[in-house]
Amino acid sequence: MFDILKINKLFQLMKNKNLDAVVIGPSNTLEFLTGFNPVGCERFQALFITCKRQYFYICNLIYAEDMKRWFEKTAPFYVWNDDQGFHETLKKAIVDFDLNNKRMALGESIRAVDLIDMKTLFPCEFVNGTDLLEELRIIKTEQDLNKMRMAACLADEVMDDLTRLIKPGMMEKEIKVKIEDLFIEKGADGLSFSPIVACGTNNSRPHYRGNSGVIANKDVLLLDFGCRYQGYCSDISRTFFIGYISKEEERIYTIAREAQAVAVLAAKEGARCCDVDREARKCIEGHGMGRYFLNRTGHGIGFDVHEAPYISGNDTRCLERGMVFSIEPGICVPGKVGMRVEDIVAINHQGETEVLNQFTREIVIIK
Amino acid sequence: MFDILKINKLFQLMKNKNLDAVVIGPSNTLEFLTGFNPVGCERFQALFITCKRQYFYICNLIYAEDMKRWFEKTAPFYVWNDDQGFHETLKKAIVDFDLNNKRMALGESIRAVDLIDMKTLFPCEFVNGTDLLEELRIIKTEQDLNKMRMAACLADEVMDDLTRLIKPGMMEKEIKVKIEDLFIEKGADGLSFSPIVACGTNNSRPHYRGNSGVIANKDVLLLDFGCRYQGYCSDISRTFFIGYISKEEERIYTIAREAQAVAVLAAKEGARCCDVDREARKCIEGHGMGRYFLNRTGHGIGFDVHEAPYISGNDTRCLERGMVFSIEPGICVPGKVGMRVEDIVAINHQGETEVLNQFTREIVIIK
Repeated sequence: MFDILKINKLFQLMKNKNLDAVVIGPSNTLEFLTGFNPVGCERFQALFITCKRQYFYICNLIYAEDMKRWFEKTAPFYVWNDDQGFHETLKKAIVDFDLNNKRMALGESIRAVDLIDMKTLFPCEFVNGTDLLEELRIIKTEQDLNKMRMAACLADEVMDDLTRLIKPGMMEKEIKVKIEDLFIEKGADGLSFSPIVACGTNNSRPHYRGNSGVIANKDVLLLDFGCRYQGYCSDISRTFFIGYISKEEERIYTIAREAQAVAVLAAKEGARCCDVDREARKCIEGHGMGRYFLNRTGHGIGFDVHEAPYISGNDTRCLERGMVFSIEPGICVPGKVGMRVEDIVAINHQGETEVLNQFTREIVIIK
Repeated sequence: MFDILKINKLFQLMKNKNLDAVVIGPSNTLEFLTGFNPVGCERFQALFITCKRQYFYICNLIYAEDMKRWFEKTAPFYVWNDDQGFHETLKKAIVDFDLNNKRMALGESIRAVDLIDMKTLFPCEFVNGTDLLEELRIIKTEQDLNKMRMAACLADEVMDDLTRLIKPGMMEKEIKVKIEDLFIEKGADGLSFSPIVACGTNNSRPHYRGNSGVIANKDVLLLDFGCRYQGYCSDISRTFFIGYISKEEERIYTIAREAQAVAVLAAKEGARCCDVDREARKCIEGHGMGRYFLNRTGHGIGFDVHEAPYISGNDTRCLERGMVFSIEPGICVPGKVGMRVEDIVAINHQGETEVLNQFTREIVIIK
């Protein structure tokens, strides 16, 4: 079940950080390690991996059949039922694996309320495991890259289909449903995140999640979506103009697009993430729009849609072969308009900066 | 922005539990209190409400415009950007609101990794706030009930539509997409959870989340889905038979249906949740199938699809007017078959047990 390369890398990272165990709940991280990502609900479940190269899984009885088929027949399983709750079962597991008073890193999907309960059950030092678990998959193999190329290609295709489907009068939520339908039709596993479809002035909010906007003539329409393909994510944003583009809109769009191109150019093997961010920021500031650039320039992407590296002022890491990330500087004028162009970019194994998305960055006016 | 009745109830509960603050991240709980549920991503954001009837909101710059429009103009806002991270900004807010060394309850969506960081930033006692926050909304008003009746009615309609749409050869994931489309068409806000569509032997796993099963003749097909309507959730399960039902399948289905009817009958005003669970369990045990009844008999439902009360062996609470919950005893024979019938049931304000779902519980064979 465990990929030997991945698990060896995990043990090395645990050793470097002096960790006795990592605890991983349902998440893309769990799927990356085990191939399985169970439905997360309020019932506690997690994989515990110890530095002694042992592991166990704890879950509610209703997940036991699902989980047991993913682990070796001999895997240690701790199953609790709804009548008992998980406390006593977990306490026993902690004793069995000699984890009392040890140092454990928690993955990002463990809930604070469960950590609070765990602290009352057994004494341990708990640390934030996010960086370690992202480190585990920051370098993509050629095989991973191929899946990401395919995921990006599907996103390009859906974007292209939408330019023909979208008409004034459509509601934002209709387009969201359409995006999912199109991805499923094309063979994606599903969405990588809930699509952002923002018309009118809604797009000045970068993560707008409303549904009920109706596309009107002369609107600016921002689309930001992606799929998962064989586990790997895509993420693309484009800004469209419905029937018309004003001079001011053209000016803003041109700046957003220029900043994106500048950042892609800066994203070379060996460049620091923060310097790539700086280039995009300098470009937008140069046009006097600095205060409207709210987001980081980009985020790593892979099994999760947001993961290391972060193309942000506080990530001083250097870009290496196998890293994949978005480049998406945005301009958001509060209550007025938001625009961005987002592509996924890889430093490929030839050391080249490869833009995975091909959909046009030219001005597109939807009639 | 805050409903005065809800917020007064919260302050009363905080006082009873000797709490100085509650911390609520993006979640249905936040939406229940504020009307807004922002996209949760890895960027820390939360509403802090103090026992002095003060509050503040902390979020990343990219969410600031969204959030500010939900709060009063004068609401205290702490905004951090991607370059800084949230630590220093939160520390300042904690000092400003005199929350150092205080007792804080965390809501269910706060991440353990953020709690670990918070513990390094300021000294506080953190407690599990799940029960308190669920208590806040365990009693539905007549107006809430009307929304839940409508949500249930939409779920019944979608179930009915599906009996005509589903054909052998369809993939599970096509049906999932169809369920969402139908709900949107009918005016729901969206899904209340990712639908479970489980054909063949997949349905022996109660929370099966696979996609790729293909419906074959003679299959048993389990559907479990719901929508949100004006914030309130529905949740329905039915088991269908594709073209044929065997004697053994008929026997199991009849037991599942009987157990469900028995539990609905037991779910009277004043009955203890655990006793309702016991009745369902006795029925299935009486037919020699006790070991295949894996789940609790039901869960409360409202703004969240799982919330208090829990119709489970360890919930000794008595059912009161205004409580709404599922009744869904299931029979899961590992690797073979799983069946359940699930309805949402309310103790209405006349003290009656009202079944909100109307879709037939008779055997349905889909041709």
